[in-house]
Amino acid sequence: MKQTFNVTGMTCGHCEKAVARAVKDIDPQAEVVIDRNQNTVDITSEQPRLALSQAITEAGYTVGE
Amino acid sequence: MKQTFNVTGMTCGHCEKAVARAVKDIDPQAEVVIDRNQNTVDITSEQPRLALSQAITEAGYTVGE
Repeated sequence: MKQTFNVTGMTCGHCEKAVARAVKDIDPQAEVVIDRNQNTVDITSEQPRLALSQAITEAGYTVGE
Repeated sequence: MKQTFNVTGMTCGHCEKAVARAVKDIDPQAEVVIDRNQNTVDITSEQPRLALSQAITEAGYTVGE
């Protein structure tokens, strides 16, 4: 299922890759689409929302409500 | 010898690492000190200035005068 997150702190393409990598570390099958200008991270994954959110936070970015 | 470059486009720590890596690719012995807030890259290296500048440019950043 597709889950959308509002993520701030992604300033460049490396940041996008770091976020995608963090998500794929917990779900290698996840599909991740990031638009850093919109601060959006769309993740298609069956992982619980909290787990995905924590993975992004631990990578050093801020997940909004 | 220490050479200072003005480099714009470094928005985060990943960018600093990418610049340092680009420099070390052409001179593994180089000492690289980066302050992205000041847009400065200090490189201690015997490589010609142009080679260092090109390495940074090819990594996707802009080197000023």
